[in-house]
Amino acid sequence: MTTFAIIGHLARTDGGFSLNDLPGSGGRMDVLCRCVNASLFLSHDLRRDADCYLVLLGAPAGPKTVKFSGASVRSLSPDERSAGALVKKVIDTPCGSEFREAADGVSIRKGGLERLMTEHAFAVLDENGTDIRTVQDLPAAYLLSDHLNFTEQENGLTGACPRYSVGPKCLHADHAITVLQNELDRRRCGWK
Amino acid sequence: MTTFAIIGHLARTDGGFSLNDLPGSGGRMDVLCRCVNASLFLSHDLRRDADCYLVLLGAPAGPKTVKFSGASVRSLSPDERSAGALVKKVIDTPCGSEFREAADGVSIRKGGLERLMTEHAFAVLDENGTDIRTVQDLPAAYLLSDHLNFTEQENGLTGACPRYSVGPKCLHADHAITVLQNELDRRRCGWK
Repeated sequence: MTTFAIIGHLARTDGGFSLNDLPGSGGRMDVLCRCVNASLFLSHDLRRDADCYLVLLGAPAGPKTVKFSGASVRSLSPDERSAGALVKKVIDTPCGSEFREAADGVSIRKGGLERLMTEHAFAVLDENGTDIRTVQDLPAAYLLSDHLNFTEQENGLTGACPRYSVGPKCLHADHAITVLQNELDRRRCGWK
Repeated sequence: MTTFAIIGHLARTDGGFSLNDLPGSGGRMDVLCRCVNASLFLSHDLRRDADCYLVLLGAPAGPKTVKFSGASVRSLSPDERSAGALVKKVIDTPCGSEFREAADGVSIRKGGLERLMTEHAFAVLDENGTDIRTVQDLPAAYLLSDHLNFTEQENGLTGACPRYSVGPKCLHADHAITVLQNELDRRRCGWK
């Protein structure tokens, strides 16, 4: 099982965003939708052994976490709008501090990174980290930020996490996930 | 300079598609838009040394080729809709067999793969090809297909091209471009 979690610092926490304007009205929800795609899609198939958490921190409702489970998600297409439509569908579901499945394979709960950190041994993807190709045992869970840097508070929470880099250039979060999935695929399949 | 070309077998060749339905009305234009993103975007920057050609083969106007030039493109954001809006803006521009710039850094001409093959020494990205990590000198131009396989005619045109694979899993075209860009970044920057 491989887990990705992406912090959406400005990502809208209710359904008051337009699928026609995911970057603006969604608080860069487009970034998060592309991360869902990169985490879960193979060509003509889904990665059933991967999960993707979106930590939504924008207005107006306070932190919420949406979980896309590769094992059970349905009605998900690779385009941004498809993942955005599923977020919009589940985001206003009444929920507490435990995940509630609000669409097939898509769950939601209140709360953000602090809780998630207690559940997964994350590595942080960070352009200043150790090259993933040189890491002997890559972990099962990875934390990324959206288009903004981690906040001081988030850096505090993740201070003990290993920090890995996917390459010499600073990439979008979804591109970093794609490169990491490729490295994991290679190792599992005995490629160099 | 790195060049990517993606064949859009069903991609609409006039502006009669909706930005709200790039997969359906656009003939999987969403795939092509993500390929533009993967070819040209770094985090908070553009790859000014990359070009991306979209070869549009769908209804109703016959083959057209749209060129996104990393060196000069403007008004391009990472979301699919942004690239789609630029395609829609240029697609109905009257043009002949030579590229005509119809928006900053976005050009269009009539014709498809046959002409493009005379201008670039493409390698074909193919899941059955040679592992890119084992190729000593990676070429400067890469050809990919959208969600459909290459046709027999296209396989005929590209029969003499080297065929390279980015990994053991069959990936979406945009993910393959991302992995390849990472391999090229590493080599240029002296990473393994």
